[in-house]
Amino acid sequence: MNNEVLVVGSVAFDTIENANGSVQRVLGGAASYASICASYFARPFVVGVVGTDFTEADRTPFLKRQVNLDGLEVREGKTFHWGGSYDKDFNTAVTKFTDLNVFQNFNPVLNEAQKNAKAVFLANINPELQISVLDQVKNPKIVACDTMNYWISSKKQALLEVVKRIDVFFLNESEARQLTGEYNLIKAGKLLLEQGIKYVVIKLGSNGAMLVSREGLVQLPPFVLEHVHDTTGAGDTFGGGFTGYLASLDEWDNLQAIKRAMMIGNVMASFTIESFSVDRLANLTQKDIDSRLKEYVSMLTF
Amino acid sequence: MNNEVLVVGSVAFDTIENANGSVQRVLGGAASYASICASYFARPFVVGVVGTDFTEADRTPFLKRQVNLDGLEVREGKTFHWGGSYDKDFNTAVTKFTDLNVFQNFNPVLNEAQKNAKAVFLANINPELQISVLDQVKNPKIVACDTMNYWISSKKQALLEVVKRIDVFFLNESEARQLTGEYNLIKAGKLLLEQGIKYVVIKLGSNGAMLVSREGLVQLPPFVLEHVHDTTGAGDTFGGGFTGYLASLDEWDNLQAIKRAMMIGNVMASFTIESFSVDRLANLTQKDIDSRLKEYVSMLTF
Repeated sequence: MNNEVLVVGSVAFDTIENANGSVQRVLGGAASYASICASYFARPFVVGVVGTDFTEADRTPFLKRQVNLDGLEVREGKTFHWGGSYDKDFNTAVTKFTDLNVFQNFNPVLNEAQKNAKAVFLANINPELQISVLDQVKNPKIVACDTMNYWISSKKQALLEVVKRIDVFFLNESEARQLTGEYNLIKAGKLLLEQGIKYVVIKLGSNGAMLVSREGLVQLPPFVLEHVHDTTGAGDTFGGGFTGYLASLDEWDNLQAIKRAMMIGNVMASFTIESFSVDRLANLTQKDIDSRLKEYVSMLTF
Repeated sequence: MNNEVLVVGSVAFDTIENANGSVQRVLGGAASYASICASYFARPFVVGVVGTDFTEADRTPFLKRQVNLDGLEVREGKTFHWGGSYDKDFNTAVTKFTDLNVFQNFNPVLNEAQKNAKAVFLANINPELQISVLDQVKNPKIVACDTMNYWISSKKQALLEVVKRIDVFFLNESEARQLTGEYNLIKAGKLLLEQGIKYVVIKLGSNGAMLVSREGLVQLPPFVLEHVHDTTGAGDTFGGGFTGYLASLDEWDNLQAIKRAMMIGNVMASFTIESFSVDRLANLTQKDIDSRLKEYVSMLTF
């Protein structure tokens, strides 16, 4: 079956404090959340780098989900380690430290299987590396991309190069405004469509996500949860589920498929935020997922 | 047909400045927006007070929509006049002046027709007056209520009395937090359910609305508009459409009916924000409404 998703990005350790408690050096990183989430829909290949302190136990969640780790390079040194804390509202993450360690010399080099993936998810990394990946892959059907404020400030030109070569772009509200200089999110999205992107997906945090596309505007609510444990990785989970789902389709390039991908992104993110790290996300049954998808559709049926 | 909606609240003049322009002394007030909106679904009766400066022309939008104005008292003096401005994001209204004028002595006294209304919408007024209305009405099937931060601060006890006697409560996010002391909106909603309210509807501004009820949690997106002209009255329109729609039903007290009422509130609010005052809201065709409802349902169909 032709349903490989190449996920390129960080595999990291997170040290997190929030109103529900704290954890130290747990598995994190955009590529971890995205690939583990994508594994429920497609066959993910991770390309990333970790240090020699990354143990077999740290690989367990990936292996359990049959995420291909051939592209997870091990370098002498320590794994990328992020530390941060959240307010009770989870709206703002305050970074306490960012120890890039081996990640600062990350240079993705793809093997044949990775080059031939049907879908590519460029998680939040230096846009120059995203370009390097796009130069290596062989005609993927779907290219989705994420970014962050740091790259918009420091590597805007490279990011605008990336933008011309992707199908789906994930941004949050402030990133969309920062990148385009346009406050209105729909107008910001339309400016990005003019750059050649097909689907601009603006992540709205606890308010779900909005799609700006030539086929129409869509806003979808989140899967509503009363108790949120930790929001780290929610956006990466959204992107991984979205891209993984599209990779599983024969025809992905239409509004209905994109809407379903958004629904899946929202529903999968609801699992991630129920625990620290990938504890919940990596341990789902098909029934867990189907049940929430059904509940979501039911919520939106009049 | 038994579908009267009694709307008690302000009929006012607004002077507004925002990024799209400015208007002076245009028709505003919560009861205006709510009753005109409700008129598309039910038979609204307004109970309010205006000054002798309120002209026949000011009554035109009501009369055009067959809103019953028997309860619109005219007192010697000037009509309530609010002045405010908005930032480009419409998230914060800055009040420039609030000339209550004749409204400060508003004392709703109902006639027989008003007392027998099937539904009551208590727009944002002093909770002591809301209690007075509830003391006068004769067993309405539906009582919905709105409020604002000012009353939560200054008349909390009276407002908590009101809360015990209503079916539906509309609040925005900050009001829900202020009233309950609970940051999490779902927990805040559940605290209000414990007071006897059946349906707590938290208005999320440009992100739609959330329902907290014993039958379940629902979050619905807004009707997505690229260009927002002025958001004044959007919440009142939501409440009026919601309550008016319920008044039109034989069986209103179930989750499906409430979800449709939320959809209608969202869709009707999308018309209000396309113009200053009720210019757009008071001039809709059934086709305008049906077309947006259809588009909304289609957006949420997977």
